[in-house]
Amino acid sequence: MSAPALEVNCPVPVPDGLLAAFDAYETALLANDVEALDRLFAPGPDTVRGDGKVLLVGHDSIAGFRSGRKVIPTRRVARLLVRPAGTDAALVMASTVEPATGATGLQTQLWHHIAGEWKVTAAHVTLPAGGRPAAAPPVDPAVWRVVGTPLVAATSGGPLEGTTVAVKDLFEVAGQRLGAGNPVWLAEQEPRRTTAPAVAALLAAGAEITGIARTDEFAYSLAGQNAHYGTAPNVAVPGGIGGGSSSGPASAVAAGQVRVGLGTDTAGSIRVPASYQGLVGVRPTHGAVPSAGVLPLAPSFDTVGWLTRDVPAARRIADVLVTGTAAAATRMMVLPAVEAHAADDVRAACAGVRANLVAAGILPAAETGDLDSSTLETWFAAFRTVQAFEAWQAHGEWLSAHPGVLGPDVGGRFASAATVSAAEADEARGVVSEARTRLRALLDGAVLVLPTTRGGAPDRNAGADIVEAERAGTLRLTCLAGLGGLPAVSLPLARTADGRPAGLCLVGAAGTDLALLDLAATIEGSVR
Amino acid sequence: MSAPALEVNCPVPVPDGLLAAFDAYETALLANDVEALDRLFAPGPDTVRGDGKVLLVGHDSIAGFRSGRKVIPTRRVARLLVRPAGTDAALVMASTVEPATGATGLQTQLWHHIAGEWKVTAAHVTLPAGGRPAAAPPVDPAVWRVVGTPLVAATSGGPLEGTTVAVKDLFEVAGQRLGAGNPVWLAEQEPRRTTAPAVAALLAAGAEITGIARTDEFAYSLAGQNAHYGTAPNVAVPGGIGGGSSSGPASAVAAGQVRVGLGTDTAGSIRVPASYQGLVGVRPTHGAVPSAGVLPLAPSFDTVGWLTRDVPAARRIADVLVTGTAAAATRMMVLPAVEAHAADDVRAACAGVRANLVAAGILPAAETGDLDSSTLETWFAAFRTVQAFEAWQAHGEWLSAHPGVLGPDVGGRFASAATVSAAEADEARGVVSEARTRLRALLDGAVLVLPTTRGGAPDRNAGADIVEAERAGTLRLTCLAGLGGLPAVSLPLARTADGRPAGLCLVGAAGTDLALLDLAATIEGSVR
Repeated sequence: MSAPALEVNCPVPVPDGLLAAFDAYETALLANDVEALDRLFAPGPDTVRGDGKVLLVGHDSIAGFRSGRKVIPTRRVARLLVRPAGTDAALVMASTVEPATGATGLQTQLWHHIAGEWKVTAAHVTLPAGGRPAAAPPVDPAVWRVVGTPLVAATSGGPLEGTTVAVKDLFEVAGQRLGAGNPVWLAEQEPRRTTAPAVAALLAAGAEITGIARTDEFAYSLAGQNAHYGTAPNVAVPGGIGGGSSSGPASAVAAGQVRVGLGTDTAGSIRVPASYQGLVGVRPTHGAVPSAGVLPLAPSFDTVGWLTRDVPAARRIADVLVTGTAAAATRMMVLPAVEAHAADDVRAACAGVRANLVAAGILPAAETGDLDSSTLETWFAAFRTVQAFEAWQAHGEWLSAHPGVLGPDVGGRFASAATVSAAEADEARGVVSEARTRLRALLDGAVLVLPTTRGGAPDRNAGADIVEAERAGTLRLTCLAGLGGLPAVSLPLARTADGRPAGLCLVGAAGTDLALLDLAATIEGSVR
Repeated sequence: MSAPALEVNCPVPVPDGLLAAFDAYETALLANDVEALDRLFAPGPDTVRGDGKVLLVGHDSIAGFRSGRKVIPTRRVARLLVRPAGTDAALVMASTVEPATGATGLQTQLWHHIAGEWKVTAAHVTLPAGGRPAAAPPVDPAVWRVVGTPLVAATSGGPLEGTTVAVKDLFEVAGQRLGAGNPVWLAEQEPRRTTAPAVAALLAAGAEITGIARTDEFAYSLAGQNAHYGTAPNVAVPGGIGGGSSSGPASAVAAGQVRVGLGTDTAGSIRVPASYQGLVGVRPTHGAVPSAGVLPLAPSFDTVGWLTRDVPAARRIADVLVTGTAAAATRMMVLPAVEAHAADDVRAACAGVRANLVAAGILPAAETGDLDSSTLETWFAAFRTVQAFEAWQAHGEWLSAHPGVLGPDVGGRFASAATVSAAEADEARGVVSEARTRLRALLDGAVLVLPTTRGGAPDRNAGADIVEAERAGTLRLTCLAGLGGLPAVSLPLARTADGRPAGLCLVGAAGTDLALLDLAATIEGSVR
């Protein structure tokens, strides 16, 4: 921007031509004249441009960044300082103000006089911030449905005093509606008169409910992309999905808005968002935490679980909700046929953690469990069949009376679920029962260590093929705990090659919930 | 921080001693060794240090800033670039990472070799941001009690479709409790079965309720500093109070979280936060908007009003809630005895706006109204007496049964209110009635233009004498609309000498609410 009236603070006369070059630069910046900007930056590999996020070295990297950048808001230079350095260089510092918002920023440029022209050789930009805030709702509707300060107070003191909880919108909470992730369902609801026992137990132990957080529709998804309320953010992977179906509780915990996210896990709905967002996720032994007052998806596999930032916080919840006194695992198990469904980078990270556990003397070398891939496929198919049949048993009547209310993803899944016959379900239940027996025998006294999900969080705009591949791989990893009714804890111990968090999962014997969390604490303390 | 393994990116050999000086600087910074930092910055008036907020020029200003700064979080230098400039100067750019949070920042320093030592002559700091978010509740409890997405949906379509509203915690909302700014009161409340007519009218016109926002206790304060829930933030004056008692709705509007704050104004509870936060605040003609379903403070003066960011938004609410068809003012009025209670800078700004209104042909030159300062004092005392008597009538019984539940400020005010006798109140009502008659005559066909508040928002930690002086001055300005039952609109047209927003208030004849907002729109469009 040309600023003719602006006084320049400079202890000596400003070098000739410098201000004209600076003005040309500001003008080009506001016009997003990329060609002029590229010309005003010195060519070559040593030119540098940084802000708080990225530090780009080399004229061409800077030009590449610039070509993909949005137009910046109009701003004016409020103050301009020049500090010469030697005979052919000078530092220019310009503070800027955006008239529309009052936001203030600062840019510093080192200019060099090269072949008769002033060129920027180094630039540091602090983007305008502050000023009048942009309009945005007080809470993100993709994370929350209703929030209070608190929404529901503790009913007595106890070990969880001061613990804030986001409750997935599948639990009965007295005085609140139960939304199930669908606005048409919600509109028909009246406030509940009772509170689910799991929630009531937390309140009685001193915890308070901060709010009711989002779920994928009827919990029948692992994506966290509710068609009506939006995609819950993943603070650990900007642009990535957060995972579901306990999407709201997970995002709320990751964002530091609550200590605990209370959710459900049927096929991975706690473990998957834990994995994608770098959280601890607990799926207890089937039936260990009462699921009364919780909207069912598939009762054969449904569990009440929770998400936290670290293991001690997860353990404090377990102490209130679970009474599993079984002893800790003394053996480590690996199932190559299952693990084969994880991506290479995550599988390698998992093997590395297992090696570290052995090296640290925490567990003996892993035994390879006897499970071939065709058995896994048979079991997985049975799991899916039983889940689908029960999901339609639970919601088919209401959904049939309200056609078209679901988003395409969950809608397609329920449509397919509607086609499962009772006979098919019975046969599949037989397979599940066999699988449960075998898995419980396999993990008696042992802990299985495997990747929680196939990879890290997919991008929000990833193609359907990528999303489906992630989902298919992940379900083969997560279905084991469901089939076995076994406790599982996902820990943020791995990262993908491109730096996304990926969870590693401990699956233990039935009833070893507390011992499994003790092991998780040891691992968190020593391996992470 | 010493970073021995760090590779330095520099196109030529790094000048001798520069890295040692840089390391010394990082070490001193993390140790908050102010003396060493001062020594490493070049002396004299030309040394400069800036970030996005402040740009300090001169070694001593920088040293002064530094002495008042908190210790910065531990960080490490992730990348280090050096770019020499001439023979005795070099630019150093260092990107930093905070291990605890992953937040990244950038600092750029121009070093000069002066008398055998490297000194910083210019520094630009982008403070670390991003990374894992700090723990904080999803909504600020000083602003909100409960928030939904929405909390209460529109009951039909209409002109306010898409308009989000923060409702002060004094209004009945079906299904919600009414909290009145006091936790003991709140704990005794059941969800209401009905919705206050003013709220219902907004919902019927298409607006939705985003949440229930804070009030000072029983609305008996102008500070916005609830002893139980905290001080609502003022985004326009960091560190300043936001004003009350419609504190939550005002902060929510100013922060861009909702379009409209619905509140009440007895002695200034809409106008004061509007003034302090740079908002538009509307207090309608007494009785023009039904106050049924609203917890009373002093029914002789209580009104239902609203806060918005601009006049058109305020007008849309008026169109739904008010049916005042009286004609616009043709004369401008000034009351020097009243205005004398404003601070010099605000009074001067008000006079300037009046001059601009005349110059723009919007209103003729102001007439000086006949009101002396002793009459004002008599009227004001009567206003306070009636307000206090009615406040105790409204809440004395409950407060007597719950001793000690109020914060000291509001508690002291109610204690004093308890001492007002019915005879004193009757006498004061006579004075108020006289004042109302005289004010209505004075403003027939005219608009009074005066400062809304004595000054800008006081600091949160201002001494009791400053707060009391502000309050005393402000109440003498705000009481006129209350005494007269007259409509008033506060507009963000002034700033104090130190840059804080201060409102100017238009007070019109009874029933001229819509015409007053039309005038406000003209003023906003031409004078601002």
